[in-house]
Amino acid sequence: MPEAASAQPTRAAIGASEFDRDTALTPRAPGVYDIDLSAGWTIANAVNGGYLLAVLGRALADTLPHTDPFTVSAHYLTASRPGPAVVRTETVRTGRTLSTGQASLFQIDGEGREVERIRVLASYGDLDSLPDDVRTTAEPPAIPPMEQCFGPQDGPTPVEGGSAITERLMLKLDPSTLGWTLGQPSGKGEMRAWFGLADGRDPDPFALLLAVDALPPTAFELGLTGWVPTVELTVHVRCRPAPGPLRVSITTRNLAGGFLEEDAEVWDSTDRLVAQSRQLARARLA
Amino acid sequence: MPEAASAQPTRAAIGASEFDRDTALTPRAPGVYDIDLSAGWTIANAVNGGYLLAVLGRALADTLPHTDPFTVSAHYLTASRPGPAVVRTETVRTGRTLSTGQASLFQIDGEGREVERIRVLASYGDLDSLPDDVRTTAEPPAIPPMEQCFGPQDGPTPVEGGSAITERLMLKLDPSTLGWTLGQPSGKGEMRAWFGLADGRDPDPFALLLAVDALPPTAFELGLTGWVPTVELTVHVRCRPAPGPLRVSITTRNLAGGFLEEDAEVWDSTDRLVAQSRQLARARLA
Repeated sequence: MPEAASAQPTRAAIGASEFDRDTALTPRAPGVYDIDLSAGWTIANAVNGGYLLAVLGRALADTLPHTDPFTVSAHYLTASRPGPAVVRTETVRTGRTLSTGQASLFQIDGEGREVERIRVLASYGDLDSLPDDVRTTAEPPAIPPMEQCFGPQDGPTPVEGGSAITERLMLKLDPSTLGWTLGQPSGKGEMRAWFGLADGRDPDPFALLLAVDALPPTAFELGLTGWVPTVELTVHVRCRPAPGPLRVSITTRNLAGGFLEEDAEVWDSTDRLVAQSRQLARARLA
Repeated sequence: MPEAASAQPTRAAIGASEFDRDTALTPRAPGVYDIDLSAGWTIANAVNGGYLLAVLGRALADTLPHTDPFTVSAHYLTASRPGPAVVRTETVRTGRTLSTGQASLFQIDGEGREVERIRVLASYGDLDSLPDDVRTTAEPPAIPPMEQCFGPQDGPTPVEGGSAITERLMLKLDPSTLGWTLGQPSGKGEMRAWFGLADGRDPDPFALLLAVDALPPTAFELGLTGWVPTVELTVHVRCRPAPGPLRVSITTRNLAGGFLEEDAEVWDSTDRLVAQSRQLARARLA
């Protein structure tokens, strides 16, 4: 086993990391932004859905009077490709504590037509203004210590078709959810991991949008091997995350009719539940 | 205790019930529909969010080439009132198996301005075309037999401020989630009930949109007493429901920072998980 890839000699600051550069938008006109989607966040040539969500999330943070995503609902329309894209935003409503906006990402297809890739409705607020009451029954996921978990760098590559995104993430998977890499899926719809950015940048709300869609699909532990494209994904950001690694737990309770839901919880280093998400994805049954 | 209100001498057919009449839209122009929001689906003068979702859901079913809602994401902007409203829809993308649309509901406010009440992004398909594989770990909720459960008609009214919607629903709540009605909330974020329409109409996908937001808020069992307005609500319809009563289970794992999530599961009479939803709501802390 190679040395742990999580050893980080220097830590990138928020705003100065690869993630920040690759999600940065160039304003073209009010509510219109250009971006070059980086090939660094792809899995088998498809741009990761969480990376796209972070791009759209930053566009809306620029458009709306509030800067923190509270709840973001995305419908994935067509597969994004690395390269130029344009994001168009609309302010739907502004309020004192919450503002709502809409954003779409477009790319030009091979025949020169503009194609919409993803559309998002989102409500934003100010996470720092929230009262600090916590009355929760949720418990952090039981994940072994990071040094007992495994990343894509440890042993045979677990992601089919190559995956540039794994070089940008610190992803250490709970071995009890890795049976699928040995051809022995557990049959349980669970996936758990330590999560961070490879350059050591601490998490912020936009990194949470990335974190909820960064693990291998639970479908692999349910014995499926194919691609699991997201139809819809909603994230609720519940708290500004503390510095340090995150723990992400994903659960599927219902694989039926060729679709499955994936529920993600993201916990920060202080044991706060900082984000929840649910996505509906298509299962390509063998 | 009065006789069970669920005794139904005649059952309204799908298409001929109060729910169908009150969610029926009048086309004004392509993608534009008029509706008079019924005062029959209010709680303390606010129009129920699930009823609004069913209205928007029917508008999109008319606009899109596919007629069954698969995933509907709604952001609630301002409180709807009974009375005239207009729904405007947009076809975002049409595909072979899924189509995506957007819909907004508007009303005229006291100063004559058109105000957007709710905006929805949704993907539609054909539930009858899905393969009938079911590989699920979810279990139906443990709810006592209907005759051991309690409705708003049984004893002191559990919903503050009056609630016309309770006359239109067959709602029988699990007594173990009713401590709040006796001033003894359990402290657990759970609410469970048998659910149907009072006129005996069998469930369809639009009734599922209603079912996920029809129970008293889990916040009541967490000791909160105030109103819990929905910010965002996403429903996944996973299967066309079989005839007969539904069971609805709602769970909250995280009440923090003045917000809480409510996860609903809806099960049909054949023990199929037919819908899942999650909403983010504001908790008005005492």
